[in-house]
Amino acid sequence: MKINDNFLKIESSYLFSTVAKKQRAYQAAHPEADVIRLSIGDVTRPLAPAVIDAMHKAVDEMACEATFRGYPPEYGYDFILEAIQKNDYTDRGIDIAKDEIFLSDGAKSDCGNIGDIFSVDNKVAICDPVYPVYIDTNIMAGRSGDKDENGLWSNIIYMPCTAENNFTPDLPSEVPDVIYLCFPNNPTGMVATKEQLKKWVDYALEHKSLILFDSAYESFVVEEGIPKSIYEIEGAKKCAIELRSFSKTAGFTGMRCGYTVVPKELEFEGTSLNPLWARRQATKFNGVSYITQRAAEAIYSEEGKKQIKETLAYYQNNAKIIFEGLKDAGFECYGGVNSPYVWLRVPQGYTSWEFFDELLEKCQVVGTPGSGFGPAGEGYFRLTAFGSTEKTIEAIERIKSVYKK
Amino acid sequence: MKINDNFLKIESSYLFSTVAKKQRAYQAAHPEADVIRLSIGDVTRPLAPAVIDAMHKAVDEMACEATFRGYPPEYGYDFILEAIQKNDYTDRGIDIAKDEIFLSDGAKSDCGNIGDIFSVDNKVAICDPVYPVYIDTNIMAGRSGDKDENGLWSNIIYMPCTAENNFTPDLPSEVPDVIYLCFPNNPTGMVATKEQLKKWVDYALEHKSLILFDSAYESFVVEEGIPKSIYEIEGAKKCAIELRSFSKTAGFTGMRCGYTVVPKELEFEGTSLNPLWARRQATKFNGVSYITQRAAEAIYSEEGKKQIKETLAYYQNNAKIIFEGLKDAGFECYGGVNSPYVWLRVPQGYTSWEFFDELLEKCQVVGTPGSGFGPAGEGYFRLTAFGSTEKTIEAIERIKSVYKK
Repeated sequence: MKINDNFLKIESSYLFSTVAKKQRAYQAAHPEADVIRLSIGDVTRPLAPAVIDAMHKAVDEMACEATFRGYPPEYGYDFILEAIQKNDYTDRGIDIAKDEIFLSDGAKSDCGNIGDIFSVDNKVAICDPVYPVYIDTNIMAGRSGDKDENGLWSNIIYMPCTAENNFTPDLPSEVPDVIYLCFPNNPTGMVATKEQLKKWVDYALEHKSLILFDSAYESFVVEEGIPKSIYEIEGAKKCAIELRSFSKTAGFTGMRCGYTVVPKELEFEGTSLNPLWARRQATKFNGVSYITQRAAEAIYSEEGKKQIKETLAYYQNNAKIIFEGLKDAGFECYGGVNSPYVWLRVPQGYTSWEFFDELLEKCQVVGTPGSGFGPAGEGYFRLTAFGSTEKTIEAIERIKSVYKK
Repeated sequence: MKINDNFLKIESSYLFSTVAKKQRAYQAAHPEADVIRLSIGDVTRPLAPAVIDAMHKAVDEMACEATFRGYPPEYGYDFILEAIQKNDYTDRGIDIAKDEIFLSDGAKSDCGNIGDIFSVDNKVAICDPVYPVYIDTNIMAGRSGDKDENGLWSNIIYMPCTAENNFTPDLPSEVPDVIYLCFPNNPTGMVATKEQLKKWVDYALEHKSLILFDSAYESFVVEEGIPKSIYEIEGAKKCAIELRSFSKTAGFTGMRCGYTVVPKELEFEGTSLNPLWARRQATKFNGVSYITQRAAEAIYSEEGKKQIKETLAYYQNNAKIIFEGLKDAGFECYGGVNSPYVWLRVPQGYTSWEFFDELLEKCQVVGTPGSGFGPAGEGYFRLTAFGSTEKTIEAIERIKSVYKK
């Protein structure tokens, strides 16, 4: 029995476990310290009442023979696919068919599993810094090549996103087969305008590349003219798959539900990708819990929409507090407007990890070092808006008291 | 962008969709007919009250800031891993560590995804007939070779299971790298004794093969001396991964929860498979819904155990009705004792599909043709015990009235 050797190439990144370990060590040495965590991208507000009601109802249905539900449809019940189609596409002027939407147990699963339908021989382009799952899943699949002394993989096309290009990647000089884009971006919090996305769609169409568009954070977009879906761009249905999540939209991180859109007109070498993904999901996946599907449906009800908007406003207010507080303290910072993430430049002379250590030591605030998201993240730092407002204000006051000149 | 060409090799098997289509056509032509479905392996009894209570409680926790849960641990909360470890292993005298158990959204996902950690170059051995996911996922991964005129794949080692070998596969003459075993078997309903499993474990250890042991139906085992877990066999922790499901154990088909055991001492080429699967799941999966995990925990409570036992007894009684009724009608039949499936030989001169058509026409009973599970299933037929007892009795009476000599 031969193992998949590609797995041996991945070193555990240890990003979040190192963050947690350092925090624990500090707390152990300073038991009295009130450490505030603005590091992890996990939500903290309870689920919307409409979602809770829908789940209680669904649980009761499972208790009764007449209303019990067995195996769910592999791609989702009609009620949720129709709610997604209407609210996320039709009502926004985008024409997506119901059988182009595939409900799943979350964007992370889809983001990793989507690679099953592509050849190992494809060359992928990935933003740097970015959500580590894109690169890790391609290493596992055998598309990465080898790692050089700077931590870069030989067969990956990197697209650096730094202050110098306003965190919007340039078109790569070498043409990739698959391009991962994530807007609003994790970790930088930056967005792409319609014009910027159009440039990518045109490029992909011209070069017959596939775009994997991760819009897990679309619900944080508040500014006019910023696309929430890649399909707002003409031609995108011929070159792009869209990955969506309810995790940040409705606080569903503990619920596990998202969806992926694979348009039928998306064809490569004369083969439509839609039936390939349908076959992958029907064979290696068995649908989402009925109760979770009813929960997701409730997000799209009138009360549900109102309630999740309130929770989003809560986090958006935290993001504003962080962004403005840091600016006031003299930091160069980005994101935070259409995103729950604020991305800041660490003070001159510090690495990301050195700043992490100092922030923990001097302010008892935990963030995430930018270098953990890729080599080009070095010198940056991420803070998240998912904490409580009270703690967020307290953290920013502490940072100001130490760093404000 | 190059697609994964292996996907093009799979013809849609159409097994269950052809079954459904034929049923619909018959119903349309005979609107008055009371068609009874004993075809699909999906449960119909409501969830246990203990499970329902646990879910209502967990839903309420998600409604409150103090008890809200975000991202679940990737491999499962301690409370469910400990319940599994104690009840399914320790209490049965099997030593499995908590971090050898990986909770998931179901055995179908694990069964397909486990292939990620193996090289494409492995040669796999598969029982014939069997659950189609084993072969389909290996075709997708590129391990199948090409299909010949008899419907057999050139690179797959087939292990026929027919009445001639009492549906227990013989050791293959060519040594496989990976061996899929499923007991109690789907579709034949037959089990393996401790001695038979020991033969496989010894063979795998001798040849350094890996056994993937699917025990999704273990809760149906009622006879003494029939293993519920491969780890009841000495040495199995050095050669076997076990796949488990709550779907049939506790009627969880609509809930999506199962688990996989990867012992740490399971090593190939000096690499332990446990950290490879841990890495796969941490990268391409994000855990199971908190509510579902609490539901699974409730199965192991005292009331939960009692309640699911009652439901299993209900299905077991149906299986007995089918098995004895068919025998009385003169059919040669198998399974049905430690399994919800009864596997019968179709009358001489019929193919599986011809018998399907006649049974639908003459008895208005729908079953599943054995040939749909693989070439060696030709001439056999599967009936399931997951219907209501009333309908099951009625179906068997109809069959008797037509076929009993």
